[in-house]
Amino acid sequence: MLTTAAIHRAVSAALAEDAPWGDLTSEALLPPSATARADLVARESGVLAGGAVFAAAFELVDPDVRVELSAADGVAFVPGDVLATVAGSARSVLSAERVGLNFVQRMSGIAALTARYVAEVAHTNARIVDTRKTTPGLRAFEKHAVRCGGGHNHRFSLSDAVMAKDNHLGVLTSQGLSVTEALRQAKSRLPHTTHIEVEVDRLDQIEPVLAAGVGTIMLDNFSLADLRTGVALIAGRTIVEASGGVSLDTVRAIAETGVDVISVGALTHGARALDLGLDLRIEG
Amino acid sequence: MLTTAAIHRAVSAALAEDAPWGDLTSEALLPPSATARADLVARESGVLAGGAVFAAAFELVDPDVRVELSAADGVAFVPGDVLATVAGSARSVLSAERVGLNFVQRMSGIAALTARYVAEVAHTNARIVDTRKTTPGLRAFEKHAVRCGGGHNHRFSLSDAVMAKDNHLGVLTSQGLSVTEALRQAKSRLPHTTHIEVEVDRLDQIEPVLAAGVGTIMLDNFSLADLRTGVALIAGRTIVEASGGVSLDTVRAIAETGVDVISVGALTHGARALDLGLDLRIEG
Amino acid sequence: MLTTAAIHRAVSAALAEDAPWGDLTSEALLPPSATARADLVARESGVLAGGAVFAAAFELVDPDVRVELSAADGVAFVPGDVLATVAGSARSVLSAERVGLNFVQRMSGIAALTARYVAEVAHTNARIVDTRKTTPGLRAFEKHAVRCGGGHNHRFSLSDAVMAKDNHLGVLTSQGLSVTEALRQAKSRLPHTTHIEVEVDRLDQIEPVLAAGVGTIMLDNFSLADLRTGVALIAGRTIVEASGGVSLDTVRAIAETGVDVISVGALTHGARALDLGLDLRIEG
Amino acid sequence: MLTTAAIHRAVSAALAEDAPWGDLTSEALLPPSATARADLVARESGVLAGGAVFAAAFELVDPDVRVELSAADGVAFVPGDVLATVAGSARSVLSAERVGLNFVQRMSGIAALTARYVAEVAHTNARIVDTRKTTPGLRAFEKHAVRCGGGHNHRFSLSDAVMAKDNHLGVLTSQGLSVTEALRQAKSRLPHTTHIEVEVDRLDQIEPVLAAGVGTIMLDNFSLADLRTGVALIAGRTIVEASGGVSLDTVRAIAETGVDVISVGALTHGARALDLGLDLRIEG
Amino acid sequence: MLTTAAIHRAVSAALAEDAPWGDLTSEALLPPSATARADLVARESGVLAGGAVFAAAFELVDPDVRVELSAADGVAFVPGDVLATVAGSARSVLSAERVGLNFVQRMSGIAALTARYVAEVAHTNARIVDTRKTTPGLRAFEKHAVRCGGGHNHRFSLSDAVMAKDNHLGVLTSQGLSVTEALRQAKSRLPHTTHIEVEVDRLDQIEPVLAAGVGTIMLDNFSLADLRTGVALIAGRTIVEASGGVSLDTVRAIAETGVDVISVGALTHGARALDLGLDLRIEG
Amino acid sequence: MLTTAAIHRAVSAALAEDAPWGDLTSEALLPPSATARADLVARESGVLAGGAVFAAAFELVDPDVRVELSAADGVAFVPGDVLATVAGSARSVLSAERVGLNFVQRMSGIAALTARYVAEVAHTNARIVDTRKTTPGLRAFEKHAVRCGGGHNHRFSLSDAVMAKDNHLGVLTSQGLSVTEALRQAKSRLPHTTHIEVEVDRLDQIEPVLAAGVGTIMLDNFSLADLRTGVALIAGRTIVEASGGVSLDTVRAIAETGVDVISVGALTHGARALDLGLDLRIEG
Repeated sequence: MLTTAAIHRAVSAALAEDAPWGDLTSEALLPPSATARADLVARESGVLAGGAVFAAAFELVDPDVRVELSAADGVAFVPGDVLATVAGSARSVLSAERVGLNFVQRMSGIAALTARYVAEVAHTNARIVDTRKTTPGLRAFEKHAVRCGGGHNHRFSLSDAVMAKDNHLGVLTSQGLSVTEALRQAKSRLPHTTHIEVEVDRLDQIEPVLAAGVGTIMLDNFSLADLRTGVALIAGRTIVEASGGVSLDTVRAIAETGVDVISVGALTHGARALDLGLDLRIEG
Repeated sequence: MLTTAAIHRAVSAALAEDAPWGDLTSEALLPPSATARADLVARESGVLAGGAVFAAAFELVDPDVRVELSAADGVAFVPGDVLATVAGSARSVLSAERVGLNFVQRMSGIAALTARYVAEVAHTNARIVDTRKTTPGLRAFEKHAVRCGGGHNHRFSLSDAVMAKDNHLGVLTSQGLSVTEALRQAKSRLPHTTHIEVEVDRLDQIEPVLAAGVGTIMLDNFSLADLRTGVALIAGRTIVEASGGVSLDTVRAIAETGVDVISVGALTHGARALDLGLDLRIEG
Repeated sequence: MLTTAAIHRAVSAALAEDAPWGDLTSEALLPPSATARADLVARESGVLAGGAVFAAAFELVDPDVRVELSAADGVAFVPGDVLATVAGSARSVLSAERVGLNFVQRMSGIAALTARYVAEVAHTNARIVDTRKTTPGLRAFEKHAVRCGGGHNHRFSLSDAVMAKDNHLGVLTSQGLSVTEALRQAKSRLPHTTHIEVEVDRLDQIEPVLAAGVGTIMLDNFSLADLRTGVALIAGRTIVEASGGVSLDTVRAIAETGVDVISVGALTHGARALDLGLDLRIEG
Repeated sequence: MLTTAAIHRAVSAALAEDAPWGDLTSEALLPPSATARADLVARESGVLAGGAVFAAAFELVDPDVRVELSAADGVAFVPGDVLATVAGSARSVLSAERVGLNFVQRMSGIAALTARYVAEVAHTNARIVDTRKTTPGLRAFEKHAVRCGGGHNHRFSLSDAVMAKDNHLGVLTSQGLSVTEALRQAKSRLPHTTHIEVEVDRLDQIEPVLAAGVGTIMLDNFSLADLRTGVALIAGRTIVEASGGVSLDTVRAIAETGVDVISVGALTHGARALDLGLDLRIEG
Repeated sequence: MLTTAAIHRAVSAALAEDAPWGDLTSEALLPPSATARADLVARESGVLAGGAVFAAAFELVDPDVRVELSAADGVAFVPGDVLATVAGSARSVLSAERVGLNFVQRMSGIAALTARYVAEVAHTNARIVDTRKTTPGLRAFEKHAVRCGGGHNHRFSLSDAVMAKDNHLGVLTSQGLSVTEALRQAKSRLPHTTHIEVEVDRLDQIEPVLAAGVGTIMLDNFSLADLRTGVALIAGRTIVEASGGVSLDTVRAIAETGVDVISVGALTHGARALDLGLDLRIEG
Repeated sequence: MLTTAAIHRAVSAALAEDAPWGDLTSEALLPPSATARADLVARESGVLAGGAVFAAAFELVDPDVRVELSAADGVAFVPGDVLATVAGSARSVLSAERVGLNFVQRMSGIAALTARYVAEVAHTNARIVDTRKTTPGLRAFEKHAVRCGGGHNHRFSLSDAVMAKDNHLGVLTSQGLSVTEALRQAKSRLPHTTHIEVEVDRLDQIEPVLAAGVGTIMLDNFSLADLRTGVALIAGRTIVEASGGVSLDTVRAIAETGVDVISVGALTHGARALDLGLDLRIEG
C-alpha cells in the first residue's frame, strides 16, 4: 500500500525542504572524496517501519550510496540492534541523514505503539485499527507503519468508504425519513463496493441501522457494559467497531467485550518518534 | 515565516490525500442545501497554533465557508474555550473538518509542549529552540508552532547555517589541519552572513573553536557541572547552546547553568496532538 | 465525487496543453476590447455531464467571463437545446472554447451512452456500472459522467476494493491452499471496510467463494442460462455481478437473469464525443 | 513528437490515479515472490500505437519488469497477433496491466481508424489530418497515434499556427477593414514562421484571402461541387483544406475533388478503444 | 502570448525561491499594521516590458496590495518617469519588491535593447527577430519583451517550426539524397502548417533549397555582398533571413541588403537589466 | 549548494519549454540511427560554470548520450579550448544542444565577470559578493557561478539572513524606539543563527547600530572618503560591506578603503552569455 512512487515523492520533498540549496556544513568542511560508513542503531526497543523510506533518502541524494537493510519492516528490535548500514560519499551520507531518520523514527514509533495495543488484545478476536488522524501528507506512510506493528487499517480516506455519524443522519431524519430509509437510499446511490459504516451513540439506535443492511456498526463511547450488550444484540449480523476512550489501559477490557474492531486515533496522533541513531565514521 | 503560499500548498495536498475523489458519506447522506455551524472547542488546555491553517482547510474546499478565529496564534486556552467558528455548506464543512483538525491539533500540541519548556526557564536568559527533527514536509508549520509556544527557532535547514560536528572536523584534523585552521578555512569560503555553530563534546575542545571566531558553541551532552565550567570558560565570547538529554525534568537546571540556548528535539518529535474538537450542528 | 480541486487541476493542464504560449489567432486578429456572447447548443440528443467543467475552462482563462448553465448535469436534451451561455472578452472566450467543448462533449457522450444502457434494464433491479477502462488522467470525470447517465460506479481504483481473479487465486491454490482458505487469509489482512469481489468462470467455483464470505461474486462471461443458475445458487447470499459480452443488444437479457450489477467497459472506452457546439457572436 | 518525458509524466499520473495507495488485491493475494509472464494479444484487427507507452506502465511500476515489443508503432495486426511480452513480479505486472492497456487500446483505436480514412484516399494526393478535438491531457499521444495510422497532424495548439474563422475576421471587417487588409496586418505582427490558415464558408471569400498571401485556405462545409470549384479557383496558389461533414462514407469523394488536406475530428473524438488483451500466467 | 497562467506560475516560483519560509527582516522589524506606498521609477531611459508581471509579484504575496500601472508595455520612458504605483501592507510590499523588480528590470532591458536594433532598421523592410538563446524557464517572458521593443518573434521552440542546418542535411545527402529531395521528403511527413526554414552557408546552396519549396532561407554569416547577391537570387520566392555577426554596429547595413528578417541572439542573451527602482515610504 | 535535484528540475523544465512535443527538425530530417559527436568549444576567454548542468541537458534527453567534461567548474579558458565532449544519438544531441548551451553560456558569463571583479581586489582583503538581483528561478545556478568566478555569496533569500534598511528602521524609530533598541528587540525574536546586517546611509548612523551588536554594517553609496572613515570608526567590531555604485572601474578603490565585503548586483544582472559553441559532426 506504500508505493515506490509515493516514497520517491515524499522523500524528494523532504530533502528539498531540508537542503533547498545544499548542505553548507558538509560542503565547507568535508573534502568531496571523503567517504562514510554508518549503522542505523536502535537506542530503545521497538518495531521497524520505513526501512525502504530510510534507504530512499540516501539513494535519492546520491545513487552511489549503498544502503543495506538488516531487518525487515515489522521486525521487533532491542537497544543496540543494527537495523541498516549505509556506505558512500561522506557529503551525501550526512546530507541525507536527518531526512532518513525523521521518517524511520516516526514510522517505527507508530509501529511500536501499535504493537503494544495489539499485544493487549492478542487473546481476543479484536483487531486494532487506525483512523484518519494522521499527519497531513504522510497518511500512506503512517498506515503502513500501523500494519508493521500488527494493526489493521481503517478506510484510507473520505473517498473509499462511508462513515455515517449522527450529524449526517440527523439532517435526513429531521426531514421525516427514518434512519433505515435514509441509509437504504444512500446505499442505492453508492457503488456496490462501498463499505457502509454507521456510528451509533445509544443501544436503541442499533436495530434501525441493522435493518438497512450495513457493513459495520461503530459503538461510539459506549461503556463496557453497553459494548457487551451491543455485541449481543448485533449477534454477528454485522461487524462491530468500538471507538472512543481507547488507551493502553482500557483496550484489553474493550476487546474482551467481543467487538471485532477497535479504532485508536492515538496510534498515529499520539505516537512519538523512536530513538534510532546513525553511528557514523568518516574516512578522509 | 509561514507564508500563505506554503499554507495553500500543504493544505491542498492534505485535502487531496483525504478525499481524492470526494467525500462519499456527505454526498450520499447530506442534501446539497444543508448548512452547518461549528465551533472549534478546546477539550484540554494548551496554546493555539495554526489558526490560519485550520481556516484554510475550509476555505480551500469551498470559498463560501466562513471561518472566524476567536483567538490568535500563541494564545493559551483552557477546556471549553471556543477558538474558532465555522459556517457554510454542511457538505463542505464536513469534508474539510478532519484536515483542519489534523493541522491545528498537531501544531497546537507543539505550541503547548514548547510553552511548558519555556515556562521552566522563564527566570533565566536561556531560550528554548527547536531542531531539524520535524515531520517531513511540515517543517515551516512546526517551527511556526514552536514560536507560538514562546520558543525560538534554530536554523531552518542545512542550507542556512553551519553546524559542524566532530565528524566533520575529524576528517580535516586527520589530515593534519588544526580545528582552528579548519574552521577558518571554512569561514573563508562561506557567505559572510552564514552563522557558524560548532558542537563540542569536551571542555578542552572549546578554546580551539573560539580561536576561529564562531557564532555559537554547542556543548553536547555535557553534565551540569561541565556546562557551568563551559559557560565560564567562554565568558560571553560567543553564544552557548546546550544540547542532549533535555527534558521537562532537566531543562530548568540546564538553563540555570547560564547557557544562552537550549535545543530540544522533543518539541517537535515528542509532541502529541492536542484534543481540539469540532462541535457541529447541521441544518437541513 | 468530482471535486473542485480536481476540475481546476485537469482544466488548467488542458488549457496549458492547448495554448502553451497564448492563442496566436485571437491575439493577431481580435482587438482586446472585443466581446463575445456564446450559447452552448446541443446538435444531437443526449444527457449533460460536465457543465461545471465547461464553465471552469472559461473562468480559468479569464475570471471576468461569465458562464451560466441552463441545465444541470444529468438532464436529457434534444437538438437545439441551449445548455449554457457564455459572455466576456472575445479573446478569452475563443481561447477557452475548444478545451471547454472537449470536456463536455466527451463527458456528455459517456452520460448519453450510459443512459441507453440504464433504460434497457429499467424494469429490473440490475444496476449498470462502469469499469477501470477509463481515459488515463480523467477517471473521476468519466465516473461522474456515468452517474449523470443514471449508472453507478464500480470501485475507483486498485486501492479501494479487492477484485480477485483466477490469476490471483490460482497461485495460492497451486500452493495447496483452497480458494476458501486463500480468501479468508486475505480478509484477515485487509481493512474491514474493504469490499471483496471475486470473479468466477464456472458455476462450481461459486460455493467455495461463498464459503469465505465475500461481498460480490462476478460471473464472468457466463451464458444467460448459467447466469440464471448462478443467481439461483447464490440466492441472495451476496451481490451478483455479470461481466463480459455486455452490449446494448445483450444487456436487457442479462439483467433479466436477476443479477444485481452489470459492468460495462464500453460506457467509458466505447463512448464517442457528443456533438455540442458553441454558437458565437463577437462584438467589436 | 512524443517525448520520453511526456510519456513518463502521463503514465506516472495514470498509475497514481489507478493505485493511489497500492493494489489491494495483489498485495492481499499474491506472494511477493510470484512471477508472471504475459502476452499482449490482439483480439481484433488494427494498427499498433503506443507500444512504448504500454511498456512504460510496467517499467515505472517496477524497473525489473521486462517488456519486449514484437511490433513497432504503425504496424497493422490481426486477431491473435502477439504485440508484446511482459515478464516480472506478478504483483508489478498486475498492478500496471490496466494502465498499460488503457493507453495502448485507445491509441491503437485512433491509429486503426486513421488507417481506414487514409486507405480511402490513397489514390489521391490528399492527406488526412487530425484536429484539436483530442482528449484533455493526451493530445501528444493522440496525435502520435494519428501518425501511426498514416495520417498527418494539423497544428498542435493555439500557439503554433493561426486559424482565422469568420468570427475573427467579422470583427475587423465590421470596423471597415477589408479581409485582405486585416490578414495583412495580422501577418505583419506574427512570427514569420507562423503558418496562417483561413476558414472560408463561401467561394467569393476565397480571392480576398488569397490576396493577403496565406498558407492554407480551409473550405468549411462545402458541397463536393463547391470544393471542386474552389480547388480550381485557388489553382495551387495555396494549400486547400476541406473540413466539415467528413466521414468514412464521404472522405473518398471529398479527396477526389483535389483538395490537399482533409481534417477529420472523428479520428480522435470518434475512435473507440481497440480490444487488446493481456494473456497472463502467474507462477508461484 | 504571455498568458496569465504562465505569469502566475513563474512569479509564484520566484517568490518561493526568494522567501521559502518568509521575510525574516520584515517580520522582525515591521509591525503587521504598517503600510507602504511605492513608485516604480525609471532611473535610466528604456522601454517598459513586464508591467503585469511586476504587478503579479505583489498581488501573489498579498491580494490586498494594489498596483496601478501608469504605462503600458511597449511605452518608452526617460529617467524619473513613474511607471507604476504600489500600495498596501508594508510587509507584503517589501517581501515582493525584489521579485517584481527582477522581472521588470530584465524584461525592460530586453525591450530597450530590441528597440535600439529596431530603430536602426526602421527605414528598411527588415524585421528584427529573437532566437532560442533565452533564459531557461523564461522564454515566453523574454519573447514578450522583444515584442514590446518593436521586434518580432522567431519560432518559440523546437516543436513549432523546422530549422534545417547543414548538419541535418549533411546526413541525408551523404546517403545519396539531394538536398531538394531530402527537404521534400521531410515536408511530406510534417504538418502542412509547419514552416520550414533552411540555413545555407554558401550562395550555391540556395537554388536546391528553393527547389524544394521552403518558407524561409537563412543566409548564415554571409558578407554584405553575398547577402545582396542572395536576396537578388531568391528574388522574393521565399522569406530571407540574415543571421550571424549581427550587432548594433552592423545591423543597419545588413538590413539595407534587402533581407526580410534579421535574427539577433543578443536581444535576449546580451541584454542587461535596466535600472528601475522602487521609491518607498512606510507608514507605521 | 547546487544540488543534483535542483539541476534535474531546472533542466527538465527548460527541455520541456524548448521542445514541448519534440524536435520537429531532427525527427523529420535525421534517421533514428544517426550518431553525433560534438565538442563544447570556447570562442572567447572566460571561466567555466555549469559543466554538470550542460551535461544534464543531454543525459535527461537521452541517458545513452555520453558527456565528458574536460574542465572543472571554476577553470579559466581561452578561445579554442575544448571544455566537454558529447557523443550519442544525433537526434538526442541536437535536441539538447540549445538548452545545454543556454545554461553554460549564462553561468560562465557570470563566472567570467565575477573573476574580473575578483582580480581587481585580489591585493586586498575584500571579498566580492552577489546580491538577490538574480534571474527568477535560477538563483542557485547564478550563485554557483559567482563562486566559480572566485566570488562569494551573500544571503540566498529573504529567509536566511536579515538585511535592515532605513525603511525598516524608520517605522520603528517613528514610534519612539531608538535604532539600537529596535534592533535589539528584533534580535530577541530571531533565531540565534540569523545574521543581522544593517544598511546605513550616513556615518552618524553607525554607532547606534554597533551598539545593538549586529553582524554586518552595510555602508550604502558612501564616498571613498566616507568609506575610509567608516572602516576606521567600526574598527573591526563588525563586518563592513560596501554597496552601491560598484563597477569594474570603481571596485579597486572601494576595496582599498579596507571594507570586508563588496556587493555587486552587476555580477548577475549585468553579465552577458559567453560565446561557447558546439562543434558537431553527424554520422549517418
